[in-house]
Amino acid sequence: MEKKIIKFIDDMEERIISYRRDFHKYPEVGWTEFRTASKIARRLIELGFEVKLGREVLKDEERMGLPSEEELANQYERALNQGADEELIIRLEGGFTGVMGILELGDGPCIGMRFDIDALKVIEDSGEDHLPHRLKFSSENEGIMHACGHDCHAAIGLGVAETLSSIKNEIAGVGRIKLIFQPAEEGVRGAKAMVGAGILDDVDYIIGGHIGLKPSKTLVCGTNGFMATTKFDVSFKGKGAHAGGEPNEGKNSMLAACTAVLNLNAIPRHMAGASRINVGVLSSGTDRNVIPEKSFMKIETRGESTEINDYMREYALRIIETSAKMHSIDYEVKYMGEAMCGNCNQVLVERVNKVGRNLGCFNNIVDISDDAGGSEDFTFMLNRVQEKGGQGVYFTIGTDTKGGHHNSKFDVNEQDILNAVKLFVIITLDILEGN
Amino acid sequence: MEKKIIKFIDDMEERIISYRRDFHKYPEVGWTEFRTASKIARRLIELGFEVKLGREVLKDEERMGLPSEEELANQYERALNQGADEELIIRLEGGFTGVMGILELGDGPCIGMRFDIDALKVIEDSGEDHLPHRLKFSSENEGIMHACGHDCHAAIGLGVAETLSSIKNEIAGVGRIKLIFQPAEEGVRGAKAMVGAGILDDVDYIIGGHIGLKPSKTLVCGTNGFMATTKFDVSFKGKGAHAGGEPNEGKNSMLAACTAVLNLNAIPRHMAGASRINVGVLSSGTDRNVIPEKSFMKIETRGESTEINDYMREYALRIIETSAKMHSIDYEVKYMGEAMCGNCNQVLVERVNKVGRNLGCFNNIVDISDDAGGSEDFTFMLNRVQEKGGQGVYFTIGTDTKGGHHNSKFDVNEQDILNAVKLFVIITLDILEGN
Amino acid sequence: MEKKIIKFIDDMEERIISYRRDFHKYPEVGWTEFRTASKIARRLIELGFEVKLGREVLKDEERMGLPSEEELANQYERALNQGADEELIIRLEGGFTGVMGILELGDGPCIGMRFDIDALKVIEDSGEDHLPHRLKFSSENEGIMHACGHDCHAAIGLGVAETLSSIKNEIAGVGRIKLIFQPAEEGVRGAKAMVGAGILDDVDYIIGGHIGLKPSKTLVCGTNGFMATTKFDVSFKGKGAHAGGEPNEGKNSMLAACTAVLNLNAIPRHMAGASRINVGVLSSGTDRNVIPEKSFMKIETRGESTEINDYMREYALRIIETSAKMHSIDYEVKYMGEAMCGNCNQVLVERVNKVGRNLGCFNNIVDISDDAGGSEDFTFMLNRVQEKGGQGVYFTIGTDTKGGHHNSKFDVNEQDILNAVKLFVIITLDILEGN
Amino acid sequence: MEKKIIKFIDDMEERIISYRRDFHKYPEVGWTEFRTASKIARRLIELGFEVKLGREVLKDEERMGLPSEEELANQYERALNQGADEELIIRLEGGFTGVMGILELGDGPCIGMRFDIDALKVIEDSGEDHLPHRLKFSSENEGIMHACGHDCHAAIGLGVAETLSSIKNEIAGVGRIKLIFQPAEEGVRGAKAMVGAGILDDVDYIIGGHIGLKPSKTLVCGTNGFMATTKFDVSFKGKGAHAGGEPNEGKNSMLAACTAVLNLNAIPRHMAGASRINVGVLSSGTDRNVIPEKSFMKIETRGESTEINDYMREYALRIIETSAKMHSIDYEVKYMGEAMCGNCNQVLVERVNKVGRNLGCFNNIVDISDDAGGSEDFTFMLNRVQEKGGQGVYFTIGTDTKGGHHNSKFDVNEQDILNAVKLFVIITLDILEGN
Repeated sequence: MEKKIIKFIDDMEERIISYRRDFHKYPEVGWTEFRTASKIARRLIELGFEVKLGREVLKDEERMGLPSEEELANQYERALNQGADEELIIRLEGGFTGVMGILELGDGPCIGMRFDIDALKVIEDSGEDHLPHRLKFSSENEGIMHACGHDCHAAIGLGVAETLSSIKNEIAGVGRIKLIFQPAEEGVRGAKAMVGAGILDDVDYIIGGHIGLKPSKTLVCGTNGFMATTKFDVSFKGKGAHAGGEPNEGKNSMLAACTAVLNLNAIPRHMAGASRINVGVLSSGTDRNVIPEKSFMKIETRGESTEINDYMREYALRIIETSAKMHSIDYEVKYMGEAMCGNCNQVLVERVNKVGRNLGCFNNIVDISDDAGGSEDFTFMLNRVQEKGGQGVYFTIGTDTKGGHHNSKFDVNEQDILNAVKLFVIITLDILEGN
Repeated sequence: MEKKIIKFIDDMEERIISYRRDFHKYPEVGWTEFRTASKIARRLIELGFEVKLGREVLKDEERMGLPSEEELANQYERALNQGADEELIIRLEGGFTGVMGILELGDGPCIGMRFDIDALKVIEDSGEDHLPHRLKFSSENEGIMHACGHDCHAAIGLGVAETLSSIKNEIAGVGRIKLIFQPAEEGVRGAKAMVGAGILDDVDYIIGGHIGLKPSKTLVCGTNGFMATTKFDVSFKGKGAHAGGEPNEGKNSMLAACTAVLNLNAIPRHMAGASRINVGVLSSGTDRNVIPEKSFMKIETRGESTEINDYMREYALRIIETSAKMHSIDYEVKYMGEAMCGNCNQVLVERVNKVGRNLGCFNNIVDISDDAGGSEDFTFMLNRVQEKGGQGVYFTIGTDTKGGHHNSKFDVNEQDILNAVKLFVIITLDILEGN
Repeated sequence: MEKKIIKFIDDMEERIISYRRDFHKYPEVGWTEFRTASKIARRLIELGFEVKLGREVLKDEERMGLPSEEELANQYERALNQGADEELIIRLEGGFTGVMGILELGDGPCIGMRFDIDALKVIEDSGEDHLPHRLKFSSENEGIMHACGHDCHAAIGLGVAETLSSIKNEIAGVGRIKLIFQPAEEGVRGAKAMVGAGILDDVDYIIGGHIGLKPSKTLVCGTNGFMATTKFDVSFKGKGAHAGGEPNEGKNSMLAACTAVLNLNAIPRHMAGASRINVGVLSSGTDRNVIPEKSFMKIETRGESTEINDYMREYALRIIETSAKMHSIDYEVKYMGEAMCGNCNQVLVERVNKVGRNLGCFNNIVDISDDAGGSEDFTFMLNRVQEKGGQGVYFTIGTDTKGGHHNSKFDVNEQDILNAVKLFVIITLDILEGN
Repeated sequence: MEKKIIKFIDDMEERIISYRRDFHKYPEVGWTEFRTASKIARRLIELGFEVKLGREVLKDEERMGLPSEEELANQYERALNQGADEELIIRLEGGFTGVMGILELGDGPCIGMRFDIDALKVIEDSGEDHLPHRLKFSSENEGIMHACGHDCHAAIGLGVAETLSSIKNEIAGVGRIKLIFQPAEEGVRGAKAMVGAGILDDVDYIIGGHIGLKPSKTLVCGTNGFMATTKFDVSFKGKGAHAGGEPNEGKNSMLAACTAVLNLNAIPRHMAGASRINVGVLSSGTDRNVIPEKSFMKIETRGESTEINDYMREYALRIIETSAKMHSIDYEVKYMGEAMCGNCNQVLVERVNKVGRNLGCFNNIVDISDDAGGSEDFTFMLNRVQEKGGQGVYFTIGTDTKGGHHNSKFDVNEQDILNAVKLFVIITLDILEGN
């Protein structure tokens, strides 16, 4: 059957690439994937999947780093203008842009696959050597770009859906499949709310992956060492005053912020492993001759373990609170993203390895890699499944990229999208068949 | 003759107010007063003044806080579109927007009067209770507004020119008058370059003033205690790096900037009098998960004496240099403005007092006030004249304002503009006549 | 009568100098002046003064910067061994080392004179060119020295007592005199408790002075501009931990202290006048490889006005509290000293001037000086008297000093002590006689 | 032969314990082990060892953290008074307190054993439950104590010497043995200078160990993960000034030091592994009202690799230099200690394991432990031997301790000293015999 599947996928090349180019042309950032998600949902329905979406797959209060309501409304409007599914988009309103397609095959394990679908705030390159521009599928949405390959991930998900749908009668009776299309992976904002909605609770195997990072035809069978992370924004509000005439009448939010920055960076290292802190953005004050009233910071903590990240986050929050109070500053902390630590199950990594070798489309297979310092909110799904006794794996399908990830020239070798579809499908069968 | 002059000025009310409203409608920020300056110059020529402008009255390399060349070009274009004098504007190109009108009267002291003409980056109020809006002379230039009354100052200068021109034969033979229209007073950027051009070198009496700060019909005969000040921008450039994956590969410009901010504020107080320091703006970093590559600060120092300001500035520069080097950061310092300390000559203050009392249009006359903490680049002119053995004075003509200075609702009682014209003219005569 | 008094004082020279040398030989630091105070009290009794001492003249809970009980007991013992008055010392036990002698003369104004009597923790010089050493009256108490001339002040007080006692019948009927011998002026710790005991409440004129600071035969008739000040110690207690093995297990008191130091120095300047802050001592940690558990700071704030000092102190305390909490540190603040702002009454300054000129023993008389940046707890007395409608003055009697004040080689020209006695006595008579 | 050796050692119990108690009674801190080293050297000579000592085994300029010359002279004098060998001590003068005994056995590998011999600045407990006190061998040298078991290490070394001496004819012809008695291990100050003297250059196997850290009868066969470390002292010298009267005249070394402390703690974490920084001691300023002239810091950096420690040290030195210059402070850095990273050779660890099991005196044998965060200058010897192609191991011989290491109640179970002697000797034979 594997041969038949491979052929089916190869034959689908044009359609899969057209999916990818369509998503690429209409990129949408986290929580505004109205067009993307509604079109995915429509196609899944057409393919015979049971589809859940919007509030069914996202727990409202666990969504992090939401845009403003005005922004959500504007993007919703744009999505409608750009061909979103008019019927389904209604259920995504307010930023509930997740979708899940379920294929019930009977008794047997439940296999989940996760595909993230959001774009980035990057201005796409418009040079002649940038293929999307030359072939006229570059971003229609100014300042937004699929510069991390999630357009491919969405297309891979649909390719997997097409394939499984085509063979569902042949694999009937051996379990259930969930194709999970996740919003807002950038900034690690979306997975927690999907897990919060309970959709991972019955999953026995969760599979995720990323395109790129390695050259084409390279497969890294698993990634370990994801760091737990918390992202949050801090707003300080003091009081302005003329810096020459009445310096003591101000409440200097910049003094508070700079005290915080130095102390945040000076949080003692943790004996149990790697920890990280970064104040990535600090913006303070308006005029040269006015005591700075407001300051704003974007902060993230990380830890090799959840315990270490908790230590960093709690220490950081204490520093923020006390440096604000030190200068009589009001403050507000807003959580913007979160991910957990995570490691793949070795048996599943080995299964990926075996399948990858058999497929023949990879010429360099790496057992496992360590994502030192990186974070992925796929870990929320991974951990939930592992807590319930299941297994998970997160692999990397290499592709020759132009520009690096998050770069305005980013592009992939579209051939590798097909390899990813094959890998997802064959691993699924391998698990279902219990090999 | 005084009565005749008063009447002349009162009769001129409509014209003076129309000058003011015209300037108000087309506000231009420092070094871009192309329309304003060219129209003033044209009118001075019409009135029989010898006119010097552009590079004749501004020393190129002493101009501080210039906009970018692109900005200068754009504003020049706009000025042309908004009715600038097409012949004279050419001589202002590149931001040489100063003008001086000279009236040669014969032997006798040279009297200078200074009027500043620039606007602010303030968005003008558009409420119905905002008179300029209701009477349709509010700003045509978005984001720019005459919110500090320099439109009035320019109109006062033209009013003085009209009056003196009308009586020049009657006062012939008793000296020379220089009406100095200065660009870029906001941020104390323009006066130094006018002094640098030598135009104050032959001035025996320099007179300046400001509208507002006190209610209508109040006259403050002199202002002392201007602080010396230096304004400068600092750019830090380090190296970005992924904050999770390779924190030690970055060069964190934010650590350097925050170290600078705390230490700048901690410069020891000076035994000899008041000192000030303010970092009014700090902007650092781009992304939450990237070590901040660039930081930018707007800084000012002040001192009750030039020595104290020198102490503050030098200490500040050392802090900036060393905090940059501490974290392997490249840095650049750009001077943006400067003013000196200054005190009026008491004999001239008394002369203003006497004239003010005689005029009858003021019902509250204050001897002298202390501008604690403030700075004015008029002090460059004041100091130059005093160095050469001359005298100077800077008075305040009260007006009932709406909103405070630099506020989007700022407005004046236009009647007080006439009082200012009277004061400037009669003091001039009083000096020339040696009373 | 003045001539007679002058002669009486000149004849007393040897006795006054022997008083001074005795005090110099047995110096006692603040709150341990057991020997000094008991001997003064005994002499006042012998001279016919009503004497109040110990708890009668010091309010217990307003004494600041007390030594430990053990230290008080040790010094008490030493005082007994060094010839303290065995009967009177009992009433000074526990550090109540103030004395007041009262001379009731009848109806009329009450005049207070203040003499401070404490020594310093300075190791006295033992070179041959150091007169106290050569003449064998240098300190018997290791590490303690009268290096600020308070030995002279005590001797002046006794000289005044001797003189007034000798003429009391001749000036009877014209008022009351209080000679106040104050402990613990160093560190501005003692005056507040004397005022707290109410002994200044009936005083109409309060007179104080200091020897030195100017050459011999110079008289500065008044000192203005004393700064209000607060002195306090801060103790931080965190938790030690091995810096290599478990850095996150510590609570780093040094991080808290350094954050406090930078922010204390960065308290915004006050628009209303001079402010000061100093962390004079910081001591933190024990071993290179241990997270510093404890830190200790000696801090002082000052202000040109009480309001400014209050602003500085309150801001400082907030910084201390918050920087401690930032790093989970326990903290304790202990008040160690306090002084108020103060200015002399001009009429009294002029009276000193007149008396000084008449005396003939001064050849350089300065009207008034400004003690920029200095503090004296005489201001507590001055303010209390002024609040009640009375007047006060604080003058300086120059003397040629060796070494500066607080220096191990400090010494005076003893002849100037007599001049001081004359000044105190004649001013008193001048006031009593209402000239 | 092993049985015979074990018996020999058991019979020597009393002598070995008396060695330990003698060293315990006369503890000497690093570089002042004059008595200890001279007595060891004498005994080695008596036992027939070729002895090298003083400058023969220590490279002068690589000794770190030396006491002052005065201190060295005082301790030398004391050692003489406490029974040092009068002939040999001369060669140790000036702090050259290392000793090596060589046993030439013929052709074959050279085996080095390292024993550290210095004590700590700890005040020994004098309670009745403290065995050294009860049995009257507690420290005669006030403030100094063998609180880390190096008295035992020295006794073990002599025990090994006695044993090997007794069997030297039986093992002749199979190699050379070097017993290295190292000064100044505390603060990792001494090993570098012994390596610098070249005495490790011909060593094929280097063996070291520590008593304690685990209970009696526990053997940890190897320790890995020693961190590279650098210890250094920093002195800052600015300028004092009266904090009230002339704050700007000072050069505030405390501002510089606190800026350094915050930034040192904020050195970015290293991507490649664990890093550490600690300012363990900061002492700054003298008086509350004086700008702090001098500051002093004790600092250490550590790294999981030499590269990481280099990164930390270089960043730290840059922070120190720039924070000093920021406030016009002179600074001096003095290196006080250094250790390298180090890992044991696994084959040697296994050999220790085998020998330990065979000996029968251990009931809990642990393969290897990770000394997370700790540093040992034995690593200099280990690295030199490994560089030359040799092998090394560092094991831990447990003992039930009272109090922890470096605690005033520290004590050992003396029985475990014998086990250590057995282990060293049998491993040596095992290596020589090539089993």
